Amino acid sequence: MSAHIVLTSHPRRDATVPEVRWGAPTPEERGPLVASLTNPAARNVIGSHSGAYAVYRALAVASGALQRDHRPDLTNTAPAEAIGPHPQWADPDKIVSLDPWGHLVSTAFADRIAAGLDVRPTIAITKAHINMPELQAAVTAGRLQPDGAILSPNGDVRVTKAAIDPVWYLPGLAKRFGIKESTLRRNLFEQTAGMFPELVTRNDLKVFLPPIGGMTLYFFGDVAKLGRPETKVACRLHDECNGSDVFGSDICTCRPYLAHGIEVCIEMAQQGGVGLVVYNRKEGRALGEVTKFLVYNARKRQTGGDRAETYFERTECVAGVQDMRFQELTPDVFHWLGITRIDRWASMSNMKHGALTAAGIEVVERVPIPDELIPADARVEMDAKKAAGYFSHYTPDANELAVPKGRGLQE
Amino acid sequence: MSAHIVLTSHPRRDATVPEVRWGAPTPEERGPLVASLTNPAARNVIGSHSGAYAVYRALAVASGALQRDHRPDLTNTAPAEAIGPHPQWADPDKIVSLDPWGHLVSTAFADRIAAGLDVRPTIAITKAHINMPELQAAVTAGRLQPDGAILSPNGDVRVTKAAIDPVWYLPGLAKRFGIKESTLRRNLFEQTAGMFPELVTRNDLKVFLPPIGGMTLYFFGDVAKLGRPETKVACRLHDECNGSDVFGSDICTCRPYLAHGIEVCIEMAQQGGVGLVVYNRKEGRALGEVTKFLVYNARKRQTGGDRAETYFERTECVAGVQDMRFQELTPDVFHWLGITRIDRWASMSNMKHGALTAAGIEVVERVPIPDELIPADARVEMDAKKAAGYFSHYTPDANELAVPKGRGLQE
Repeated sequence: MSAHIVLTSHPRRDATVPEVRWGAPTPEERGPLVASLTNPAARNVIGSHSGAYAVYRALAVASGALQRDHRPDLTNTAPAEAIGPHPQWADPDKIVSLDPWGHLVSTAFADRIAAGLDVRPTIAITKAHINMPELQAAVTAGRLQPDGAILSPNGDVRVTKAAIDPVWYLPGLAKRFGIKESTLRRNLFEQTAGMFPELVTRNDLKVFLPPIGGMTLYFFGDVAKLGRPETKVACRLHDECNGSDVFGSDICTCRPYLAHGIEVCIEMAQQGGVGLVVYNRKEGRALGEVTKFLVYNARKRQTGGDRAETYFERTECVAGVQDMRFQELTPDVFHWLGITRIDRWASMSNMKHGALTAAGIEVVERVPIPDELIPADARVEMDAKKAAGYFSHYTPDANELAVPKGRGLQE
Repeated sequence: MSAHIVLTSHPRRDATVPEVRWGAPTPEERGPLVASLTNPAARNVIGSHSGAYAVYRALAVASGALQRDHRPDLTNTAPAEAIGPHPQWADPDKIVSLDPWGHLVSTAFADRIAAGLDVRPTIAITKAHINMPELQAAVTAGRLQPDGAILSPNGDVRVTKAAIDPVWYLPGLAKRFGIKESTLRRNLFEQTAGMFPELVTRNDLKVFLPPIGGMTLYFFGDVAKLGRPETKVACRLHDECNGSDVFGSDICTCRPYLAHGIEVCIEMAQQGGVGLVVYNRKEGRALGEVTKFLVYNARKRQTGGDRAETYFERTECVAGVQDMRFQELTPDVFHWLGITRIDRWASMSNMKHGALTAAGIEVVERVPIPDELIPADARVEMDAKKAAGYFSHYTPDANELAVPKGRGLQE
């Protein structure tokens, strides 16, 4: 490798690098996104592929395990199901946090790749069978009926799934939040302690691959039906909670609501519609797990113990905000899928619901988590959220909010 | 906020900023880590707290939801169980990827924080009850016996849990990999497309808070017993696999092995020892989920279909390496906990095992996943790994490797 370290904050743009015309109706007009690490002059984005896993790639190259100029062989990797294009892809304001052409690069830009341009997928679509013990239990209890196609008698479920890395179009993102692009860029630079100086020095680069976790989609039923007005859609939009999703921690309703949402999705697929689970990597309301555990301690140790009326306060003391998930970006994935109406919406969050309806996506029926699925210690969370505006058929008042008490740390 | 943008690549070190003496035996001698965003001159690390979630913090400040100078109120957030100090903390080579004092900052540096220094925890320790359907099934099947203290008849399990953000001491990390610090720094800079120019311009800053996911620890039994030679320890070291861990995808053994490992941990706690699950945020062998799904497609579409003999090749074609998890850093968390011997090790990975024994941590008994827990489509993975050196009581030969066939994409 060259002995010369190239700082990236100065433009060295190659005139042959394709322009990015975000929201253009065809991949050719939109142009490929180039995040080459070996040819800085060819780049037209800030950041690199694979998000934060770029740090592990660095270890791989530093330790000699990986060639620094490795280029992926994309043979046989193309999507296992077709998605799009949908009319929403041609509106630069509708999708600002993912690349609608991200799964299609190996075909849409085949000529450019063959000519040596380093264009990589930001979305991958495959197929799988999943099996959760809760679904087996739903079959045993008679809530779900195996059909041999979508759901097998042993609880196996056929799914299509997609992994999506975030791709941010900075002007569109700023517009979505109603702020200036320069304010967005400056805060991205300052609040990360100076990650990517190009954010403030390279205003000509409009696309940013942020090193944050992306999302995974699980589809139930025929993906090809998405985007047709007559297709009924069920959906659970789920933000990661590792402690509940994997380990079944009983302080929240995350995994129970996810499993219930999947039941709703399977039913919809069996009725000829499509079920969709969107799983976002936004641990602890995008505050991260260290902050989350600090808040748990503060909730359980405060005078009077853990209770719904002070649920949000404790988070705000530690983190400065109650929530950092920014549901403003939530509509993008639905626009990508061509979805304009969700018939059954397995979520009670007023923030998620508000973000969709503000984007013109109709939500027909909201499906709350059944009471019997709420774990013992999660009543504090549930009541606090209902009082704060979560959808339910009943909203507790101040006196009722004072009733549920969470466990102490030693219980 | 000031109109002047401060680029971070030039040293502006305040003489009053504490030196970092990595591996010093007391927190006072080691010194606090300062990642202040509002006082660049006071910083003694590269990067910022909360890892990649700093990007969401930037959205929070940019949109006006969070004050840019918010400081956490750490009241009541201190660890729910004491961990350390252990003698290993005073060896600068034993722990290079986390801050051993990271959970203790609110007490160890109370005076400095009161005096205005922005010192934040990188580790949080709380308590919880977890419940996984697999554990209920183990109780029903008689494999686990409820004791009313660790394990309740309904399957509830008492745990202590810790969230750990990565903290990298760059000279120690380079030494661990047997490379020059300058090589490590340069590749961290180049392979991330220029994230943090300080990596190459500020050699005086030796500590890096990388924007990657950290780890979560689940403890079963009395945490205070760790670090005593007579304490028996069971452990499952688990690298994240969202598709299996949460959704039960049947192409791998991740969740079944995790649930089995937790069973082993509960048994050990019931016998007076300590069980430990280490959950690492290293999705898809730290290649990320987009790459993982691309590889699934390539495996299932290759001529001859998905089979064990070509299992690793497909990953290498797409990613350039078979694995980026770098188990070289694995011993750190065990050193942090004072663990020198693991009596029951619920993992078959030769890489994880080799990393521990190379670091002088004894592994007494290796516990493979019981055959009946291997899902239908995961035989390809399991045989490929056994042939490549995974621990088992039987290693398949080339002829046997050709036998198991994974499902095609349309099956």
